[in-house]
Amino acid sequence: MILSGPLAAPVADRLAELAPDLATRLAPAGPVPADDLAWADSWSGFELPENLAGSPVRWVHSMAAGVDAMVGALVHAPGPLVLTRTVGAMPARIGTYVLAHVLDDALRLGDYRAQQARGQWRQLPAEDVAGRTGVVLGTGAIGSGVAAALRGAGLRVVGASRSGAPRPAFDDVLTLDGLPEVLPACDVLVCALPLTDTTRGLVGEALLGRLGGALVVNVGRGACVDPGALRRALAAGRVRRAVLDVVETEPLPAGDWRWSHPAVTLTPHISGPTQPGDVAPAIARNRALLAAGVVPETAVDLRRGY
Amino acid sequence: MILSGPLAAPVADRLAELAPDLATRLAPAGPVPADDLAWADSWSGFELPENLAGSPVRWVHSMAAGVDAMVGALVHAPGPLVLTRTVGAMPARIGTYVLAHVLDDALRLGDYRAQQARGQWRQLPAEDVAGRTGVVLGTGAIGSGVAAALRGAGLRVVGASRSGAPRPAFDDVLTLDGLPEVLPACDVLVCALPLTDTTRGLVGEALLGRLGGALVVNVGRGACVDPGALRRALAAGRVRRAVLDVVETEPLPAGDWRWSHPAVTLTPHISGPTQPGDVAPAIARNRALLAAGVVPETAVDLRRGY
Repeated sequence: MILSGPLAAPVADRLAELAPDLATRLAPAGPVPADDLAWADSWSGFELPENLAGSPVRWVHSMAAGVDAMVGALVHAPGPLVLTRTVGAMPARIGTYVLAHVLDDALRLGDYRAQQARGQWRQLPAEDVAGRTGVVLGTGAIGSGVAAALRGAGLRVVGASRSGAPRPAFDDVLTLDGLPEVLPACDVLVCALPLTDTTRGLVGEALLGRLGGALVVNVGRGACVDPGALRRALAAGRVRRAVLDVVETEPLPAGDWRWSHPAVTLTPHISGPTQPGDVAPAIARNRALLAAGVVPETAVDLRRGY
Repeated sequence: MILSGPLAAPVADRLAELAPDLATRLAPAGPVPADDLAWADSWSGFELPENLAGSPVRWVHSMAAGVDAMVGALVHAPGPLVLTRTVGAMPARIGTYVLAHVLDDALRLGDYRAQQARGQWRQLPAEDVAGRTGVVLGTGAIGSGVAAALRGAGLRVVGASRSGAPRPAFDDVLTLDGLPEVLPACDVLVCALPLTDTTRGLVGEALLGRLGGALVVNVGRGACVDPGALRRALAAGRVRRAVLDVVETEPLPAGDWRWSHPAVTLTPHISGPTQPGDVAPAIARNRALLAAGVVPETAVDLRRGY
């Protein structure tokens, strides 16, 4: 297996213990050298090299959880190819990120920071977090991690997915078509969607226009949210605050309105950092499953896109 | 029962449903009018009127969870007297407050707010919240609520109490004397102590000097923390940040160093607001228990002070 990117060395070290019979080579960023490519049957990293499609490599493991860029590069590759991804502790980590921002908003900690800065001691009205309704778009591993974190704080959490199939982390799951009915009562809307043709711009005018002053958090993919529609929904009070860990172009260009909007909290794609401790066990496990002819649970359907 | 203070009217309304045979009168702040005092056998409110001790009133229910001021006024009152307090949803509420600040600190959200303000997109190193050690001083209802919230985010939570008796919300409970051994590994220290002769200034030089750069949160009573010792511990790096919801004099006087210290977060005693929905059920329940000759679980030992 060729390992590439900033985590290649620590992942190789851990793999030497977890899968000692797996030979690994570290490759620099950019195209894979020809002799490495002829030698390898698998590759893992964050950014897919251009010369991988059409090579002897038959298994690609994404070190990240999000795979839309790899899907785009691999969906038309010749020959059978398996793409798997790292999940690890990311559901819990991303759930923690969302919860931190939900509590900051619910407890009005920003207002209290402003009061402290001007030396003001004043209690502000606030409603309990418990009993509020959260809606999570996406009920996969990440969405389930978000739901678990929010339910721990007493929220009722409704999920939305293409199928609407029940999932244990959620109080209820609706189809994306059934979503409009629950949006007016939604206090927190979380986007935990992968980027596909269906989800691109899904959080747009129609969806945001049904909200009644919700907090919106995006930990999925930036392009799932239509930035113009979001700006109008903030102006109309349909959205009271937006927390964006992902945007359609990262880094967000200087001068973009989201840098300075008082009701936008922007973080640089930090909610689910991949750790070497997540990647190596995922590779070892997927390798064992593939050798046994079992499709790993993190295998990506290249045509569906997630 | 005489009801007094800002929640008197809504509490009376709820009591009319929960305990319809309990006659109530609303009294203004300050001394209770003589005819009300002759009529009543019980009183509930936030601030004890001066003329209550020595009156026919035999049961005082504190609308707040903290009772140190009432204990001081009642401990030498003649005749048998029962003091009970409101707990209600306060353990969960205070736990949520602590968790919000723990996550804000752990995820470096303050650093990211500063980066956003200057238009900077940069990922900062951060360690997982899960697996950190929290120490909670006080293992009563409030301390247990804090422990539950922190364990939900994956922290290992050690409690400390006078007795060191095990409590289900904690991974482990130490006596206050056994505390020093765990402090060097403590990432978050939470004070959830009542104010008594033992706890006054307990979070002082000796205790803070054992920490190795912890976050300190006070949701107990202000005077449990020695402000001078805290200031020195911040300067020495023993404490990396202090979150103070309570201080020894409230409101905190203008010009106090804590208003403007960059590593101090100050909120105006908001972590556990008493709601009418907490008070009326507590009164109804305690009344039924007292009528049956059972000591309510929220009865205060006046000599112990909690």
